[in-house]
Amino acid sequence: MRQDGRKQNQLREVEIIPHFTKHAEGSVLISVGDTKVICTASIENRVPPFLRGQNKGWLAAEYSMLPRATGQRTIREAAKGKLSGRTMEIQRLIGRALRAVVDLEKLGEKTIWIDCDVIQADGGTRTASITGAYVALVLAVQKAFAEKTISAWPITDFLAAISVGILPEEGAVCDLCYSEDSQAKVDMNIVQTGSGDFVEVQGSGEEAVYTRSELNELLDLAAEGIDQLIHIQRPFLGEAASWIEEKKGT
Amino acid sequence: MRQDGRKQNQLREVEIIPHFTKHAEGSVLISVGDTKVICTASIENRVPPFLRGQNKGWLAAEYSMLPRATGQRTIREAAKGKLSGRTMEIQRLIGRALRAVVDLEKLGEKTIWIDCDVIQADGGTRTASITGAYVALVLAVQKAFAEKTISAWPITDFLAAISVGILPEEGAVCDLCYSEDSQAKVDMNIVQTGSGDFVEVQGSGEEAVYTRSELNELLDLAAEGIDQLIHIQRPFLGEAASWIEEKKGT
Amino acid sequence: MRQDGRKQNQLREVEIIPHFTKHAEGSVLISVGDTKVICTASIENRVPPFLRGQNKGWLAAEYSMLPRATGQRTIREAAKGKLSGRTMEIQRLIGRALRAVVDLEKLGEKTIWIDCDVIQADGGTRTASITGAYVALVLAVQKAFAEKTISAWPITDFLAAISVGILPEEGAVCDLCYSEDSQAKVDMNIVQTGSGDFVEVQGSGEEAVYTRSELNELLDLAAEGIDQLIHIQRPFLGEAASWIEEKKGT
Amino acid sequence: MRQDGRKQNQLREVEIIPHFTKHAEGSVLISVGDTKVICTASIENRVPPFLRGQNKGWLAAEYSMLPRATGQRTIREAAKGKLSGRTMEIQRLIGRALRAVVDLEKLGEKTIWIDCDVIQADGGTRTASITGAYVALVLAVQKAFAEKTISAWPITDFLAAISVGILPEEGAVCDLCYSEDSQAKVDMNIVQTGSGDFVEVQGSGEEAVYTRSELNELLDLAAEGIDQLIHIQRPFLGEAASWIEEKKGT
Amino acid sequence: MRQDGRKQNQLREVEIIPHFTKHAEGSVLISVGDTKVICTASIENRVPPFLRGQNKGWLAAEYSMLPRATGQRTIREAAKGKLSGRTMEIQRLIGRALRAVVDLEKLGEKTIWIDCDVIQADGGTRTASITGAYVALVLAVQKAFAEKTISAWPITDFLAAISVGILPEEGAVCDLCYSEDSQAKVDMNIVQTGSGDFVEVQGSGEEAVYTRSELNELLDLAAEGIDQLIHIQRPFLGEAASWIEEKKGT
Amino acid sequence: MRQDGRKQNQLREVEIIPHFTKHAEGSVLISVGDTKVICTASIENRVPPFLRGQNKGWLAAEYSMLPRATGQRTIREAAKGKLSGRTMEIQRLIGRALRAVVDLEKLGEKTIWIDCDVIQADGGTRTASITGAYVALVLAVQKAFAEKTISAWPITDFLAAISVGILPEEGAVCDLCYSEDSQAKVDMNIVQTGSGDFVEVQGSGEEAVYTRSELNELLDLAAEGIDQLIHIQRPFLGEAASWIEEKKGT
Repeated sequence: MRQDGRKQNQLREVEIIPHFTKHAEGSVLISVGDTKVICTASIENRVPPFLRGQNKGWLAAEYSMLPRATGQRTIREAAKGKLSGRTMEIQRLIGRALRAVVDLEKLGEKTIWIDCDVIQADGGTRTASITGAYVALVLAVQKAFAEKTISAWPITDFLAAISVGILPEEGAVCDLCYSEDSQAKVDMNIVQTGSGDFVEVQGSGEEAVYTRSELNELLDLAAEGIDQLIHIQRPFLGEAASWIEEKKGT
Repeated sequence: MRQDGRKQNQLREVEIIPHFTKHAEGSVLISVGDTKVICTASIENRVPPFLRGQNKGWLAAEYSMLPRATGQRTIREAAKGKLSGRTMEIQRLIGRALRAVVDLEKLGEKTIWIDCDVIQADGGTRTASITGAYVALVLAVQKAFAEKTISAWPITDFLAAISVGILPEEGAVCDLCYSEDSQAKVDMNIVQTGSGDFVEVQGSGEEAVYTRSELNELLDLAAEGIDQLIHIQRPFLGEAASWIEEKKGT
Repeated sequence: MRQDGRKQNQLREVEIIPHFTKHAEGSVLISVGDTKVICTASIENRVPPFLRGQNKGWLAAEYSMLPRATGQRTIREAAKGKLSGRTMEIQRLIGRALRAVVDLEKLGEKTIWIDCDVIQADGGTRTASITGAYVALVLAVQKAFAEKTISAWPITDFLAAISVGILPEEGAVCDLCYSEDSQAKVDMNIVQTGSGDFVEVQGSGEEAVYTRSELNELLDLAAEGIDQLIHIQRPFLGEAASWIEEKKGT
Repeated sequence: MRQDGRKQNQLREVEIIPHFTKHAEGSVLISVGDTKVICTASIENRVPPFLRGQNKGWLAAEYSMLPRATGQRTIREAAKGKLSGRTMEIQRLIGRALRAVVDLEKLGEKTIWIDCDVIQADGGTRTASITGAYVALVLAVQKAFAEKTISAWPITDFLAAISVGILPEEGAVCDLCYSEDSQAKVDMNIVQTGSGDFVEVQGSGEEAVYTRSELNELLDLAAEGIDQLIHIQRPFLGEAASWIEEKKGT
Repeated sequence: MRQDGRKQNQLREVEIIPHFTKHAEGSVLISVGDTKVICTASIENRVPPFLRGQNKGWLAAEYSMLPRATGQRTIREAAKGKLSGRTMEIQRLIGRALRAVVDLEKLGEKTIWIDCDVIQADGGTRTASITGAYVALVLAVQKAFAEKTISAWPITDFLAAISVGILPEEGAVCDLCYSEDSQAKVDMNIVQTGSGDFVEVQGSGEEAVYTRSELNELLDLAAEGIDQLIHIQRPFLGEAASWIEEKKGT
Repeated sequence: MRQDGRKQNQLREVEIIPHFTKHAEGSVLISVGDTKVICTASIENRVPPFLRGQNKGWLAAEYSMLPRATGQRTIREAAKGKLSGRTMEIQRLIGRALRAVVDLEKLGEKTIWIDCDVIQADGGTRTASITGAYVALVLAVQKAFAEKTISAWPITDFLAAISVGILPEEGAVCDLCYSEDSQAKVDMNIVQTGSGDFVEVQGSGEEAVYTRSELNELLDLAAEGIDQLIHIQRPFLGEAASWIEEKKGT
């Protein structure tokens, strides 16, 4: 039994509020337990310089936490004038994860900007960001597809992310809250598709190491959690869910 | 009649959700029409260097907009590595406004950090920030007062802020939404106390000028609006409302 | 009687030295008491990106203080690598103020850069900057008009700025010197045209508040001071004074 | 057969030159094929603020590439004024990896700085950095231990890192050179100890995904490569190798 | 004959206005032809960290040009957020030059800040800065010496600086104005004491080279010019001139 | 006799390893005693904005030290986010020095980037950088000339640089190592061509001054050292040595 009464393989409660803000092409408030992230997807009619003239799109992600999303107030990165390594690492991860299920050639010369802003943090903000951002992305693309500014459906699979880790007492668990995360000897983030394939596996011993069999146990837990997350996301995708289901088969 | 059917002196709908996030000592989501701002107040047990050893507290404010709070996505100031002049101007205004109703000597060597993060913008974000932040401030101080980490009640009056302006057709109006704001020839922000005194009057002709009688008309509209805003804030202040009422009389 | 013997409505001595530096199209050294500011106006044959192709000009202002303009040496903003909020606020104010009396459409695709560099500070640097910059602006435009690089006269009114405030003993006064400014409970800056209209009203309670009748008293004092300042500026405007007078009537 | 004639599980030639520069407490030039990295370990008698007074040490890593380490000259991060996300990610990885085999409590209040400067790049610079830095670290600690400024032996295991990936034609391979890396559909970096435990597993699909059985194949390849790398490092560790061997058993 | 009618060894007109601004301990406006620089010396009661506790002072210099000191407006370094290499080079030169004639041990734990702000540029701004700053320095030290906050006279010699160069037609000349400077094939700056010793010799071929005999010719011209400059400075030093004269003899 | 047994006019041992890294068009590792610098020359097919369309090339230099090139680890400029004044000064010097022997018109619209990265420092890093960079430059140009991307031979003379200085006991010496440099009362860097002409003379008294006859002694020592350095460089220039010899005669 975990400190909040969950079983090892049990997710926290997940809630998704679509269309959370009015301006973005796609927007979602995702809550995973007490972690809450506003995820928006914005479509811009141009691409970064390195892609110009290739008739191909791009997807870029940015991540931030409000100063008082956390127990102690943190200093704004805008005030410090630079992004922390942690922020850079997370936004690179989010971008890479989502690009794995987008056929960029189908976008034309457009950039999709994903913004994940954590308004309350209780562990797993990067995985909640990916899981929420996937829904915002589908909403935005669906809108553009309906308006025919994107002419071929570009999203090729479902996608979600989860944290797993090894706790000193409870052993391997999924979806760690902050107090678990701060005790974990291994911290792993997995991004996986609806087909069960990996997009990203990132596992770090925290001043500790882990064995191959521990890794396998963590991957099993993650797979189970990802399945549930994709099940939760699906109703918010509307008819796009069936288009993605079809693509996934090819 | 204004474009959204309001009368000249009519506010947009105002909604305040207290305790919007769990970590901050005080927190509020304020909506003024489609403008939505998360306001938090955090209490820190130290003061900036220039106040050390004076047995006096401080209140500092920061303001930011999520990139997609607006119709067009804006670049994050953290990514650009510096704050815009507009942001600086607004956060200085918020801090100055709130400090006018806090007796800093009563705080002891504490800093209250006010964070205003606009999650959706439709005009009047700085005034909504002040109006919301005032409630977050009272909630935070109330908590510290209950926990006896602040020993004497420091808040000396009610406070709210409103925008007023002159439109080409409708003339003087209060609480401008974005589309009104972008046509206004004069843009004025007023911060006023429950006693009806001014804390701040900032009125700029936008490539235009205005007369003294126009100024008076705007100030009248603002006074009326501020009264209503304080009426809306009051239920969220709990028993602190009566303490403030008392102070106000002195 | 004020500490330097002035009456409540009495300006400090104002001196304007036109053509103070040789390279700028327009340049002035303005002294208001011990506050001394070099104001230059430079005309550049292009506009910022947001205005390109609109056949319209722009006016932008920058403000700075020499490190030892003040009693204590301040650190250069160039050395710190960023502008303070105060500097940003002031340069935005100067730009907005001057744009109110320039018909930007008449400039063609030109930018007028206003630079205000305070070489000695004794209160009221931002208002002295506006008052001096207005003269530099007229000199620069006059030169361009004579050389026919600007073909229609673009300046539509006279303009000056003044500080007013409320002192603990003396009450409402105009044109505060530094030692007055540091005691004032209200600090107000007014920018007004030759027609007596407001361009900018900015009044802040300094950890204090003020009433509507105090506001009115301050506005009366300001109007009187602005009239005198425009009277002082006028001889330096040469024949442009009569062109402006004419425009003003329309 | 791979493009350079290697077998799937074959490392490039690895060369380690110890004591490559004279000032650092430990220093190494490691070559892995054409990838060459100068790794130094510097011992400083203080710790970062967050650790002060805890009688515990720290290890921090920094990573950089010379501008012409690559086929195209890259702009210096010092000239741009900020670190890229890639650099931040890599230096966080190097630090985390090495801390996993250092008992920080045994260092006392010291910081070990690891600097990895790539002078020539041909793929796998982050893994070569970790493998080389481990040797530099042991040399530095050995010196401090001999001079008795570190009193208890703090290094708890051997450590090396390797890249593995999946190529379109050759399938799973280890130790990718740059031209392989740029075609790989999966790119994985593994850091492992002499005991065969994982410190870090980071595998990213590059606009692609991978299956669990592909993951297993990659982990097998990595384990084999890490064993060989530790075998290559060992002679450079001198008598420290036996101390580490002992620790490892506990 | 030079373009402005001067002889090869003839200085432009030099004017020094002492006590140009009121706050600085020492301040001067120096004009060398059309080059005009405000030089101030400020005394601060602390030293930089690297000198703390050594009972020794420091002298640091900063240099800047107003944006419109030049024919074309230049962008402020404060706006760009960083100092140019040229600025850094010049302010290091000014600091080094003045430190050569100050006995830092005699200052006690004080820093003298030299600020040179060019308000109008016409060639030779760095040498005019040094020549003017020397006078400001002596004025500041004299004041502190009179007030007994500096107890032993620390300035050990006279000091001035001059530019010399080789023009395509006129050959070797001293004190180049801007239009000469932009044609010179060699540009040399010399800082020399009243005793005729060198503090600094910096001579650069501008995409050109120069011979030893050309160097000698330039050094002769410089020596002659420096003598005249020190003669011009002397009356502004008051009785300090005789104290310096005395020191110089030792 | 000097502390390391050298005579006053004796260089430290100089070693040049050409083609030290594989990607750069020209690359060299130069050792001057214990000072070691990697110098690369990279040719880029474009010029900076200020030269566009002039059918002329450019040469720019950058300089850096690895953090542990020195006895104490220094903080990376990339981590601090800005270049020090010393770095700026040195890279400007290197660029200016090399441009003096390159006929930029012969390059076409190309930029040659010189990168000097000090991997071990023991005094004289800037002069070793110039001496080494000259060889890297010739190698790169030779390659481009052979490949006919540069059609006329642009290098017009040999070039080397040396430090000279005055020590308290030994008097004037050449090629100072770090421990000599830190005691020197005069520190001078000379850049000279194969024809014996000066490109750059930079001599600073270090809180000291020097006489004309001392200057002459230093220049004599420098000339002797430069001759030897050019003699050492020559074999690495291949057949280009004779082309340069020829140019030099013109």
